[in-house]
Amino acid sequence: MGSIVAIQGDQASFHDIAASQFFGGQSGRVFCDTFTDTIQAIVDKRADYALCAIENSLYGSINEVYDLILANKLYIFGEVYLRIEQCLIGLPEAQLSDISEIYSHPVALAQCEEYLDNTLPQAERLEYHDTAAAVEKISQLLNPQFAAIASRQAAKLYGMQILAESIETNKANYTRFIALSTSQPDTPVQPNKTSIVLRTTHTPGALYNALGCFAKRGINLSKIQSRPIIGKAWHYMFYADVSAGAQDENYQQAIQELQAQDCKVIVLGSYLSDTSAN
Amino acid sequence: MGSIVAIQGDQASFHDIAASQFFGGQSGRVFCDTFTDTIQAIVDKRADYALCAIENSLYGSINEVYDLILANKLYIFGEVYLRIEQCLIGLPEAQLSDISEIYSHPVALAQCEEYLDNTLPQAERLEYHDTAAAVEKISQLLNPQFAAIASRQAAKLYGMQILAESIETNKANYTRFIALSTSQPDTPVQPNKTSIVLRTTHTPGALYNALGCFAKRGINLSKIQSRPIIGKAWHYMFYADVSAGAQDENYQQAIQELQAQDCKVIVLGSYLSDTSAN
Repeated sequence: MGSIVAIQGDQASFHDIAASQFFGGQSGRVFCDTFTDTIQAIVDKRADYALCAIENSLYGSINEVYDLILANKLYIFGEVYLRIEQCLIGLPEAQLSDISEIYSHPVALAQCEEYLDNTLPQAERLEYHDTAAAVEKISQLLNPQFAAIASRQAAKLYGMQILAESIETNKANYTRFIALSTSQPDTPVQPNKTSIVLRTTHTPGALYNALGCFAKRGINLSKIQSRPIIGKAWHYMFYADVSAGAQDENYQQAIQELQAQDCKVIVLGSYLSDTSAN
Repeated sequence: MGSIVAIQGDQASFHDIAASQFFGGQSGRVFCDTFTDTIQAIVDKRADYALCAIENSLYGSINEVYDLILANKLYIFGEVYLRIEQCLIGLPEAQLSDISEIYSHPVALAQCEEYLDNTLPQAERLEYHDTAAAVEKISQLLNPQFAAIASRQAAKLYGMQILAESIETNKANYTRFIALSTSQPDTPVQPNKTSIVLRTTHTPGALYNALGCFAKRGINLSKIQSRPIIGKAWHYMFYADVSAGAQDENYQQAIQELQAQDCKVIVLGSYLSDTSAN
């Protein structure tokens, strides 16, 4: 596809790698500083699509993205999972034992804390806004005592050396990204996953009854996430990922039963699940 | 009570006001920069208790605090709700129309964005680590063009003038704080709320079946929040607030049925609900 995709982060960031995996290597980019800017790029039609991280297996849901989807009435038309593997990256002539300063995004530094404590306790850790941009920075500073933490792809892009691979503490480190558009995309032939928002009545057992519409039909929910309803303190809506496509008859019956319970349902999109997650 | 209470923030911050409401005006404080430091203060016995924000009605759950409770095996023994009302605060001689710089915590600045855009579009907004500390700062700078956004109490503490009251965009702005201790506290005579963590089996319908243990006994859940299980990608546990005390027979039957379903239950505490929230 020759699509232009808005992402948070720079070239060779994890968002960039996920976008290439989903949209193909020929897709263009609008690089953005924040999730808000990323969504604004598709609202302003500077990009065709956006690809945003929605959840990390260690950190949990990225609530800001959930809120932006609803506020901008966006559609989810696909997903991609990426194993997050962090590398320690230095100049071609760098020696691991000489490293005195390490640049990276604060989340990446935190993910590699154990390795840094054990291997490079003397090195100072410096926060930077993006993992890939940290590699670009050390490539410009030309000091072999400086290193960055980022993807393998970022090391290659800037001609840098990988000093250590897979240095993250927890290897079960995956991020789920979703593909977003401002207009309803063509539904794939056989979608098998649907993202919805449920707004139940504010009565005891309402969530239980809502989940029952799926459970009694054998439809699994791979995820459920509560979010506050703005302006109604302590009332919640629920984001849910349903393991069924919107064309599925069981799914359609479940939605009808929800509506009969006065539960409001917003369908964010029906798409093909990324089976590499399992 | 003459207790020492660890909080995030300074004197007259919203945490400090909530602590006075819950522990009384005579309670002492250990002022901390982060939630991690706040919990460390009770682990190190520099404070008797901690009081931490756990949820805001606009922002949602504060996941970091949920994670700290489990990681440090803490007990919840009470809760307090506070309406968050932001004031624009200046020097005694300040004029609203002359304000050119406004200091506050980034969350407070965001909550008052609409007021600032409409009333003080020319004023620069500067981020500071704490609302009350921003008032202290402008009281020291002695420039009548500088203002801060903070609580009424912070204005009073530093002898400053309230230039505008209740300037937050959304008035349904409440924060729930929880009282935490490292050892199991004396249970109140008639607790009516219990906070638990549920770890269901990873099978379709498991959450539905777990919620059914409460729903079929007419026990309401005022809150349910999913969090990832670290090291098991896309497996979740659920924090729930149950509207029943741990001594309640119905509650006890529900817990027994959960355990019979192979659902692991951790009880974080049973306490009196703050009825001012309703």
